[in-house]
Amino acid sequence: MSAIYQRVALLGLGLIASSMAHAMRRRGLAGHIAGHAKSAESRDVAMELGFVDSVHESAAEAVAGADLVVLAVPVGAMGAVAEAIGPHLAPGATVTDVGSVKQSVIDAVAPHLPDGVHFIPGHPIAGTEHSGPRSGFATLFENRWWLLTPPAGADPAAVVRLRALCEGMGANVDEMDAAHHDLVLAVTSHTPHLIAYTMVGVADDLRRVTDSEVVKYSAAGFRDFTRIAASDPVMWRDVFLSNREATLEILGRFTEELFALQRAIRTGDGPLLHEYFTRTRAIRRGIIEAGQDTDAPDFGRVKRD
Amino acid sequence: MSAIYQRVALLGLGLIASSMAHAMRRRGLAGHIAGHAKSAESRDVAMELGFVDSVHESAAEAVAGADLVVLAVPVGAMGAVAEAIGPHLAPGATVTDVGSVKQSVIDAVAPHLPDGVHFIPGHPIAGTEHSGPRSGFATLFENRWWLLTPPAGADPAAVVRLRALCEGMGANVDEMDAAHHDLVLAVTSHTPHLIAYTMVGVADDLRRVTDSEVVKYSAAGFRDFTRIAASDPVMWRDVFLSNREATLEILGRFTEELFALQRAIRTGDGPLLHEYFTRTRAIRRGIIEAGQDTDAPDFGRVKRD
Repeated sequence: MSAIYQRVALLGLGLIASSMAHAMRRRGLAGHIAGHAKSAESRDVAMELGFVDSVHESAAEAVAGADLVVLAVPVGAMGAVAEAIGPHLAPGATVTDVGSVKQSVIDAVAPHLPDGVHFIPGHPIAGTEHSGPRSGFATLFENRWWLLTPPAGADPAAVVRLRALCEGMGANVDEMDAAHHDLVLAVTSHTPHLIAYTMVGVADDLRRVTDSEVVKYSAAGFRDFTRIAASDPVMWRDVFLSNREATLEILGRFTEELFALQRAIRTGDGPLLHEYFTRTRAIRRGIIEAGQDTDAPDFGRVKRD
Repeated sequence: MSAIYQRVALLGLGLIASSMAHAMRRRGLAGHIAGHAKSAESRDVAMELGFVDSVHESAAEAVAGADLVVLAVPVGAMGAVAEAIGPHLAPGATVTDVGSVKQSVIDAVAPHLPDGVHFIPGHPIAGTEHSGPRSGFATLFENRWWLLTPPAGADPAAVVRLRALCEGMGANVDEMDAAHHDLVLAVTSHTPHLIAYTMVGVADDLRRVTDSEVVKYSAAGFRDFTRIAASDPVMWRDVFLSNREATLEILGRFTEELFALQRAIRTGDGPLLHEYFTRTRAIRRGIIEAGQDTDAPDFGRVKRD
């Protein structure tokens, strides 16, 4: 495949940025890959692993001459980075981001970008519980969704070009409105993460059950919560602070439903519980059919004959 | 390995019982394996797959001459099965169960067992989101915990013998008090399941987000909830109805913590969120070190280079 962008600047060198670098390299999607991270250690690791062609101490330096700039920092840091690079962006360059929240990123970034620069916010729905420049790998985005939320009036050609890059890295691309994205993700990702964090915290606090018991007997259910709750704390703090309204709305519905099930347990309403638990199986089947998951028992964690 | 029991009767032929049969066969832990299930279809499948030596229409018939009887039916059905087999149990036989709740099973089963029969309740902490006689496999219990809750005054020799069977199938065995077991499992399994069921239900109810969106974009977080929520509805209905007190206690603590995090989001208390999310990583690391899980990214769902 021929390069889609001649010079890509990755601002932030964590799991997503390093995975993008590995994927672009493998598919020959980018000419030169320039990288910048606030942390000197991350910059050193990027050079050591060699997934970037050049590393720069300042974001402004990294974006010079780039036709694609990727903001891959925590959502809360997007505004400051945009402010730092605004005056240094090449005319006609495309700026995208990989934040898990879109409206607040748009509000923080857009004001700092000069005319003639195309801002096309994005969100790759892919990740692991690992973070940092050593955690990236080229296949992270394969068969995962990459959501783009181009503003009204975005340049169609610039959107098509960015789509091609995402698809080149193996992702499926959808476009939607930023506010709708934030609601969908509050349901599919943000609220589940908050709940998982909470349950892990409860287990940790409970004095009559030792941590070692929690750890030893986590196989059934709790283990999946800990995986979710092991994600990057800074990223998630920013997600909840910046997608506040949608997360609080979904949390409200969640507690409402939870109290209904809690009452059913208290009153011994077996039929209600059975009906509820039966209904949830359909979504699970849907996810397997949608190819976002495997139906191997326990995700193949248990080796099958 | 030489047979530990000459004749094992499996009452119920679902995921756990069929996996026990496969494991006992492979390791030569049992002489004859007799099976019974209420459903004619399950009995037919068991014969078709051949993981039992004989299938019986009645539980009473299946336990005749057995030196080990395994109650592998939903927790709510244990009492009725115990009542049906009580008069037909061989003197000196051991009766165990695989229920996810222990105290209520003991209350339901013990009164029906004659003197001279050893009742040693058990709970293998292993499973997949699949159920039924076709879902079993020989390695399900490998490196998983099998908890035994022998009553005070249980025959030590009978306990040692049952331990040997569980260990022979690859499990690690711990013994604990039944009430403590129920509290530990309320934390590590029962409450997480109820929460996952609830979140999946919320997603399904939300009209502004389509099911297909929920399904397509489930990769981050929600997917793990659906796996948990796809478990057998009858089994889980019975678990919650029979471990009511412990589940309600943990749910109470959970909502208390959740409201604290919810308030932090509402008030924009970033430091509290960051501290909380950082703390949860330790438990995750503990689980990986305890060997109950893999630290491969995303549990190896994403292929790594």
